[in-house]
Amino acid sequence: MNINEIIRKKRDQEELSKEEIDYFIKEYSAGNIPDYQASSLLMAIFLNGMSQREIFDLTMAMANSGDTISLSSIPGIKVDKHSTGGIGDKVTLVVMPLIASLGVPVAKMSGRGLGYTQGTIDKLESIPGFRTNISIGEFVSNVENIGISIMAQQESIAIADKKLYALRDVTATTESIPLIASSIMSKKIASGADKILLEVTCGSGAFMDSESRAKVLAETMVNIGKQVGKETIAVITNMNQPLGRYCGNSLEVMEAINILKGKGEEDVVKVCTILGAYMLKLAGKGDNLGNNFRLIQNNIENGAGLKKFKELIEKQGGDSSILDSPELLNMAKFKTPVISQENGIIYAIKCKNIGQAIVNMGGGRQKKEDFIDNTVGIEVLKKIGDHVEAGEPLLYIYSNDEEKAKKEAIKLQRSFKLGSVEVPKIEEIIDVIE
Amino acid sequence: MNINEIIRKKRDQEELSKEEIDYFIKEYSAGNIPDYQASSLLMAIFLNGMSQREIFDLTMAMANSGDTISLSSIPGIKVDKHSTGGIGDKVTLVVMPLIASLGVPVAKMSGRGLGYTQGTIDKLESIPGFRTNISIGEFVSNVENIGISIMAQQESIAIADKKLYALRDVTATTESIPLIASSIMSKKIASGADKILLEVTCGSGAFMDSESRAKVLAETMVNIGKQVGKETIAVITNMNQPLGRYCGNSLEVMEAINILKGKGEEDVVKVCTILGAYMLKLAGKGDNLGNNFRLIQNNIENGAGLKKFKELIEKQGGDSSILDSPELLNMAKFKTPVISQENGIIYAIKCKNIGQAIVNMGGGRQKKEDFIDNTVGIEVLKKIGDHVEAGEPLLYIYSNDEEKAKKEAIKLQRSFKLGSVEVPKIEEIIDVIE
Repeated sequence: MNINEIIRKKRDQEELSKEEIDYFIKEYSAGNIPDYQASSLLMAIFLNGMSQREIFDLTMAMANSGDTISLSSIPGIKVDKHSTGGIGDKVTLVVMPLIASLGVPVAKMSGRGLGYTQGTIDKLESIPGFRTNISIGEFVSNVENIGISIMAQQESIAIADKKLYALRDVTATTESIPLIASSIMSKKIASGADKILLEVTCGSGAFMDSESRAKVLAETMVNIGKQVGKETIAVITNMNQPLGRYCGNSLEVMEAINILKGKGEEDVVKVCTILGAYMLKLAGKGDNLGNNFRLIQNNIENGAGLKKFKELIEKQGGDSSILDSPELLNMAKFKTPVISQENGIIYAIKCKNIGQAIVNMGGGRQKKEDFIDNTVGIEVLKKIGDHVEAGEPLLYIYSNDEEKAKKEAIKLQRSFKLGSVEVPKIEEIIDVIE
Repeated sequence: MNINEIIRKKRDQEELSKEEIDYFIKEYSAGNIPDYQASSLLMAIFLNGMSQREIFDLTMAMANSGDTISLSSIPGIKVDKHSTGGIGDKVTLVVMPLIASLGVPVAKMSGRGLGYTQGTIDKLESIPGFRTNISIGEFVSNVENIGISIMAQQESIAIADKKLYALRDVTATTESIPLIASSIMSKKIASGADKILLEVTCGSGAFMDSESRAKVLAETMVNIGKQVGKETIAVITNMNQPLGRYCGNSLEVMEAINILKGKGEEDVVKVCTILGAYMLKLAGKGDNLGNNFRLIQNNIENGAGLKKFKELIEKQGGDSSILDSPELLNMAKFKTPVISQENGIIYAIKCKNIGQAIVNMGGGRQKKEDFIDNTVGIEVLKKIGDHVEAGEPLLYIYSNDEEKAKKEAIKLQRSFKLGSVEVPKIEEIIDVIE
């Protein structure tokens, strides 16, 4: 087999065989195919696409390129969850303890943030003492003992995906549906879950900016799940504005605690409850979504979800006193308002800019090795459809460098688009693909 | 400026600015942009194309990426010639001495062969003693003294093109019109010619397999020449079968001598005379092509072209006794026939296979550093439209390894397609773009 010929085929819109895809992934992982040939192939895939069959073969080749985890020693249906990334998306922090409190075993591996979104692992690490780099043994034993564990994605999982992900990041080949779908699903499959719930974000704060593309991505991943015998449901959520009130690692942990205490904002509570209901369905806890929805709501109201989160924190070395005294979380020094310059009704928010501002202030990574400051973040005061008067704050920026914050404030002020006509509030859930 | 953003623009079919193209070429030449980003951009260019403006800017950026040669100390209009590559294409060897014998100064830099075609420099080096690595000083002084010099392309010319050419070769991005046009024209422009004659080959033995693509390539290059103020004419020639009788370095020198002696095959003589006539026109020796044609023919018949070739060989250290005794050229040990298995009329020849067979026997390069055996080659006995009987030879293979030759013979036998209906002889000249 010859990599030049494989690139040529994809370039000329021919379908690659399973053998050709396996060869590419195997030899690229082994360092026998240089980056410059891989990136040429990635661009050809980006522009000419892949058939569902090719995408499935690519996913399986990547899933098998590193270690594969078996969770079969844990009884019950293990449901994994993945979000394609959003601003202020703390759903995992909320939903996982809730479904664990309803008897669904939660054995979740999560990633760190890269680019303009934050990752669940970074958020958990803003809890003093919380250990995410635990062994597989401890991970499995935690699930057996308290029904929940969350750990950082193993470096040895889906090695080809890691290498390709880094290459895509620097060759403008990120936003490709075949490449995104295979990247996500390869990690999920290698991580050993039985079923998968996907939160596919869509809008100005997401990789997928149009509903039609989000839908194709969702269908592609659901299809991969089906083919590999792991039932998959994708919920397409609206990311045209931040989800909930806070964005940033420490701030989102604080907000997650509030949600589990029944004091969350309506939009994020709705997304958490619906995603939770679908996860209960996948876990075999009942097909009636209305019932599932109420089960989740109950365990918010009765504090069972919060209690499970407390157990998780304590089991993994974290300081659970933050649950009662969120001020014990490290917080930023400065709070800078972003003031509206005009009267009007918000009809659009350039949501990615909010994520990017957090990265610029040190709260996210430009490169994988970057140290991040968990305390910086943004509080969202106004959303689409809200009336705003000139001089009113739109956001608060939490930072440790007031000069930087003021610079970001100018850019963020321009990220809100105001008009004069009434605009409806956005619908959080766009579609469900199953 | 940001290379990732430049790749993204081309990926999304946006036009690159002159500044972006200059930035890419400058930083890539300097080693500040890695190959994996360059190859991603090359694939995006391959698939999404470039506007005439972008192609011109790319050409000029590459032309200025290395040394530029000035030939202004040589009086008269210097006309350069370039072929996009063909099998058995020894036109340069014949035409250059002929137009020099008519008073046109010939200061020609040529490339070596790469891939399935042979290069003029390799051919000249099969003449014992002939030096192609001469200094610019000697080159210019030869033109001043005898009106002709041919030297190997300087390594320092169009450095970016050299790097990109090598990268394209291993990333399936070779056959792109914007990339081919800018590669050829950047070298011609940097080499200092006043006017340019292009031989754009088209057919089963050429990069451009369709007439429509060959025409677009020709028009693109003529257009670049116009914009830079160097009049350019492109002659599209038919490369559906080898040109003339012999392919391979030593064999083609022998055939070139025969042509200059008036003993050439009709097809190759015709191409040489027509290209020569256009070069005379470019050189300001007359716009009447019929007259120019006769001037070339005369200097074949009266031996003036051969005499000029003799002067060139002697001036650059070569053994000119090969002109009278071509057997003094190094020749291969074995002559193996390729026999037709059937009766019929030839309607197609997979011409590239002939070039590839020569490479496989050591007469061409797979990699730039490869040593080549100038003696191997192929003699073409039958062409399109010819009647063939089973058992008749189609080709002779000249080799130094009879086993290898026999292996190639089997493949070459299958490269001739025979039918039962009469087929016209092919037209050598397809079109002229000026």
